[in-house]
Amino acid sequence: MIVSVIGTGLIGGSLALTLKGNSFCTKVIGVDSNIANAQLALQLNIVDKIDNLQNAVRNSDLIIIAVPVDVALKVLPEVLDLIDNQVVIDVGSTKEQIVKIASSHSKRKRFVATHPIWGTEYSGPLAAVKDGFKGKVTVICNREESDVDALSIVEKMYDSLGMNRFYMDAVSHDIHAAYVSHISHITSFALALSVLEKEKEEDSIFELAGGGFESTVRLAKSSPDTWIPIFKQNRSNVLDVLNEQIFQLKQIKKLLEMEEFDTLYKLIQQANEIRKILK
Amino acid sequence: MIVSVIGTGLIGGSLALTLKGNSFCTKVIGVDSNIANAQLALQLNIVDKIDNLQNAVRNSDLIIIAVPVDVALKVLPEVLDLIDNQVVIDVGSTKEQIVKIASSHSKRKRFVATHPIWGTEYSGPLAAVKDGFKGKVTVICNREESDVDALSIVEKMYDSLGMNRFYMDAVSHDIHAAYVSHISHITSFALALSVLEKEKEEDSIFELAGGGFESTVRLAKSSPDTWIPIFKQNRSNVLDVLNEQIFQLKQIKKLLEMEEFDTLYKLIQQANEIRKILK
Repeated sequence: MIVSVIGTGLIGGSLALTLKGNSFCTKVIGVDSNIANAQLALQLNIVDKIDNLQNAVRNSDLIIIAVPVDVALKVLPEVLDLIDNQVVIDVGSTKEQIVKIASSHSKRKRFVATHPIWGTEYSGPLAAVKDGFKGKVTVICNREESDVDALSIVEKMYDSLGMNRFYMDAVSHDIHAAYVSHISHITSFALALSVLEKEKEEDSIFELAGGGFESTVRLAKSSPDTWIPIFKQNRSNVLDVLNEQIFQLKQIKKLLEMEEFDTLYKLIQQANEIRKILK
Repeated sequence: MIVSVIGTGLIGGSLALTLKGNSFCTKVIGVDSNIANAQLALQLNIVDKIDNLQNAVRNSDLIIIAVPVDVALKVLPEVLDLIDNQVVIDVGSTKEQIVKIASSHSKRKRFVATHPIWGTEYSGPLAAVKDGFKGKVTVICNREESDVDALSIVEKMYDSLGMNRFYMDAVSHDIHAAYVSHISHITSFALALSVLEKEKEEDSIFELAGGGFESTVRLAKSSPDTWIPIFKQNRSNVLDVLNEQIFQLKQIKKLLEMEEFDTLYKLIQQANEIRKILK
């Protein structure tokens, strides 16, 4: 199986690096509109070869679109135009709009909408990690809209990465993703801004930054080029959960102001229920 | 050097486990008002011996108070009453009130106020970790209020744990701690509450929980027994930073509502500045 990866950054690069020479894949062709990144991906041995979009699509069995979610909306129809009977997937963090774009294309059934859930706060080919996806969940959306053979190839690919498959409709996916991923990024950005603001008044505030700070704020290093398109596409769900988050913080604020520590104690016990989910 | 550790939970237990038999310490005596925890600490070999407060203080050179910060305000004067010329430290996450309590005691100069900055979301002797503190920062507050020899012993102890020392007045410590630790816990608790609330409507929301979610929400597992006393003692600083955090989130919300993505892009770039602090 020859695989083309369009976009050789964190996600595409990590997929390429893991697939290259594994049981599923014999060769990985990289495509990147950023020439420097394409060269870097080749130098770092993330891909076997760099080529242009047309050649790459023509010479591969599976095409993975791993570009920011706004760019994916443009690249997907281009790739579907170019294929004969090959399989195309995307790996973006939002699914509703890409599925909508795909639905009007005559080759819709060769496309499988997916979201392998793993990432770091870094981007570009240098951020690529081998086996990052192992043991994580991949979501496959609207599978009934894809050909059975196309779906099967994509499932085999994710199996070869050691990922657990989960099936969902695209609309539900985007709601869930707002809650368990997108809001974490927003609270991290806000936390970074709060602390950076304070740093202007107080020296050496970061000397005290312990592990708790690092883990909650590290996502604030994430690139706006990745995240602005995600927030655009998932705006209404993100706003829902952001409103809920502001409500919860205001509730805690009020309890602190009123010194109602018994109620706050119970609220923290409620929050502790997250233990049943996060082991 | 014989060390007594009062409170054999996450912090006290981890200190005991690391000090036990290292270059600085020959023996660790554990004291815990919770009999089950005391027994557990002995069984787990966290301490060499369990004893009551009076015996432990009498038979040791250095006494570490590692109980929740509200309990520490009561335990510190008791311990200072019991000592001859031994050294006493606390290791709590808030420093202003304990320093105030200490200042009225005739043996104030035998006390050193410290905060070794490390922890996890777990508690109790089972959560104790050897070498958890290594490479982390410990804050020593109001050092001019302690005897030179007492300070020197405490510095040697922290050196033996491989910690970096940082000196600060207690008031500044509490402001800084609100920004780089306490607020992270509050946003985590709020995030957990938001998501648990949504879970009532939506099935399987957690199947999608990726690494980003886990790292921002793991602090929400932290015990209210530890955190309510911290929020009580640092209430006004925590409220300041919580107000700032709510302001930042509202700002992001407004930009999303108005679809002002260019401004949001710039705001995320500003948040990215946290990269200069968190490597």
